Amino acid sequence: MKQVVCGIDLGGTNSPFGFVERDGSIAAHGAVKTTEFETFEDYMEGLLAEIGKVQSRVRNTQIVGFGIGAPNGNYYTGTVENAPNLKWKGKLMFTESVTRRTGLPAFLTNDANAAAIGEKIFGNAKEMNDFIIITLGTGLGSGIYCGGKLLYGSTGFAGELGHVIVDFDGRKCGCGRQGCLEQYASATGIRKTVLKLLSKTDRKSILRNYRDEEIDGKIIYEAAIQKDELALEAFEYTGEILGKALANASAFSSPEAIFLFGGLANSGEYIIEPTKRHMEKNMLNNFKNTVQILPSGLKENTAAILGAAALCWNEIKLK
Amino acid sequence: MKQVVCGIDLGGTNSPFGFVERDGSIAAHGAVKTTEFETFEDYMEGLLAEIGKVQSRVRNTQIVGFGIGAPNGNYYTGTVENAPNLKWKGKLMFTESVTRRTGLPAFLTNDANAAAIGEKIFGNAKEMNDFIIITLGTGLGSGIYCGGKLLYGSTGFAGELGHVIVDFDGRKCGCGRQGCLEQYASATGIRKTVLKLLSKTDRKSILRNYRDEEIDGKIIYEAAIQKDELALEAFEYTGEILGKALANASAFSSPEAIFLFGGLANSGEYIIEPTKRHMEKNMLNNFKNTVQILPSGLKENTAAILGAAALCWNEIKLK
Repeated sequence: MKQVVCGIDLGGTNSPFGFVERDGSIAAHGAVKTTEFETFEDYMEGLLAEIGKVQSRVRNTQIVGFGIGAPNGNYYTGTVENAPNLKWKGKLMFTESVTRRTGLPAFLTNDANAAAIGEKIFGNAKEMNDFIIITLGTGLGSGIYCGGKLLYGSTGFAGELGHVIVDFDGRKCGCGRQGCLEQYASATGIRKTVLKLLSKTDRKSILRNYRDEEIDGKIIYEAAIQKDELALEAFEYTGEILGKALANASAFSSPEAIFLFGGLANSGEYIIEPTKRHMEKNMLNNFKNTVQILPSGLKENTAAILGAAALCWNEIKLK
Repeated sequence: MKQVVCGIDLGGTNSPFGFVERDGSIAAHGAVKTTEFETFEDYMEGLLAEIGKVQSRVRNTQIVGFGIGAPNGNYYTGTVENAPNLKWKGKLMFTESVTRRTGLPAFLTNDANAAAIGEKIFGNAKEMNDFIIITLGTGLGSGIYCGGKLLYGSTGFAGELGHVIVDFDGRKCGCGRQGCLEQYASATGIRKTVLKLLSKTDRKSILRNYRDEEIDGKIIYEAAIQKDELALEAFEYTGEILGKALANASAFSSPEAIFLFGGLANSGEYIIEPTKRHMEKNMLNNFKNTVQILPSGLKENTAAILGAAALCWNEIKLK
C-alpha cells in the first residue's frame, strides 16, 4: 500500500488537489471549481467526493492526511478568515471539517507559507535553515524559514512582506493603507508602474499599442525581451523597490537565500538582475554577498499542491 | 556547592562581570577596565585574573561556564569582529580563549541578543515564544525571538533592526549608508532631531539654554517633563519613525510583544506612547492590537550581565 498525502490548493476560482508521495511524486490529481459551491459546507462535500473519485481510480494508495494551502489561512486554528477572493465569509473551519468527514489529520497554512514548505521539503531549500520565499503574483506573498522552522509568529500570520510599507505616502493598497511593497513588486505593481510611465511621459514604447486594460506582466515581459526601454525601466524600478525591501528583510533574519516564485518571477533575469543589484547596493556590510537570489525549484503548476502536501508530511514526520 | 555562570559584558570602556545563579540572582560581581589593556590577550589574562580574585572571596561557588555579550559578537564563531568601539582589531577569538584558559564552556553573542535572552530567561518574556527587544542607547540594537528560539540567521548577525533603512535619502549612518532606523530612534537620533528643530525653527524652547554639545537624551527628557513643546515634538517624531518601523517588523515576525530597553527607553511614556500610537495606526489589520509595547523586566545596570549569563545557562540546559 502506497502512502500519500492529499495536497489541496484552495484558490478563488479552482481548487486543484493531488496525491503526493513522501518523495514528492504526484500519484494522481484532480480539481473542483471553487466558485461552483454556494456554501462552504457544499464545497467541502463536493471536494471530498471528487477526491474519493480520484482515489478509486488509483490502486494500492492510502491517504494518510491532508495539507491545505489557502489565502489568509491560519496554521494555528486551521481556519480561513475573510479571504478577499472567496465568497464564503466568516471563519471557515477547514481542517476541522476535513477531519470530521474523513477521520484523518489535516493541516492548513497560507499559500506563500505552503510554497516555502514545498521549497524546503521538495525544492531548492532542502539543505537551508534560513531562507525566504517571495511569491510575485497578483500580490506579493512570503514564507520565511528561521532556524529550520517556518515562521508563524504569535498570531499565525507572520511573514507578510507584501504589506511591509516601503513608502508611507505611496500607492493605495487593498489593505486600506498606503505604500505596501506588493503595490510595487507584483504583477499588479509593475503594471501600475508601466501605466504611470505611459501617462506621465511621451516616451515611445510598444506598450502604447495596447489598451490599458490589456497590459499585464506577460505583455510587459515580452516588451522587455524586445528591448523596449519603457518596459525595461519598469523592471528596473520594480527591482529597485524589491531589492531595497529585501536588503531590509536581510537585516531582520539574515537568510541564506531568497527565492522568487510566481507570475512575475517567470520574467527571469529581467526581474532577478535589478533586484539582486539594488539589494546588494543597499545591504548592510555584515550581510553583503551572503544572500542569494534564486529561482524556485518547484514548477509553477504543481508547486501549490506540493507545498500543501509538504506541510502535512512535515507535521506527520514530527509526530 | 552553588553553581554559577560568569556573565561578562564586553563594553568599549568597562567589562563588568557577575556570577549568576540559575534563578538569576547575582552571587558576586566585578569589573575590569577594557581600555587598560594593549592587546586582546592581555585583556583576557587580566579579566580572568580578576574573575579568579572575585571567586576566591565567595565560598562554595563553582563556575560552570561563561556567557559573553559583546558588540558585533557572533554566536556561531564565538568571535568579535571589527567592533567600532574596541581598539583591538581583527577577529577576536573570545570563547576559544576563555575555554583554552579555563577548560569551561563559553558562549558569546551580541549585546542586544544577550538582552533578549535575559528577558526570556529572567525578565518579562518568560512565557513568550515570539518577541523582540529593542535597545535604545547610543544606537539601536535588537534581539528577536521566533518560535521560542533566538534568531541568528545564516550569518549569526540576524536582528539588526537598527540598520533597517527607513528613508533611503535620510540621515547619514555610521554604517556608510543613509536613513538607518538608529539615526532616528536612539539617544543619538532624538538629539539630531532636536538640533534640527532648534536650527530650522525660531520656536521657544528651554533647550536653547544649552550648547549643542550638551544636549543629550536625558536633557531632552527633562525638558519634555517640563512640557517643553520642542522636546515633546522630538519625542513625537521619534515615536512616529520607530512606531512605523515596528509595524513593519510586526508584519515580518508577528511578535506578541516588543520590549523597549536602554537609555532612551527610560523616558517611559514620552517614548512608549507615541511609538505605540504610530505603530497601531500603521499596522496591517491582521496584527492590530496583537503587539504589546512593554518596558523591559531587567534593571539597566545588571541586564547585560544577566543576559550574557542567561545565554550560557540556556546552552548548558539544552545539552
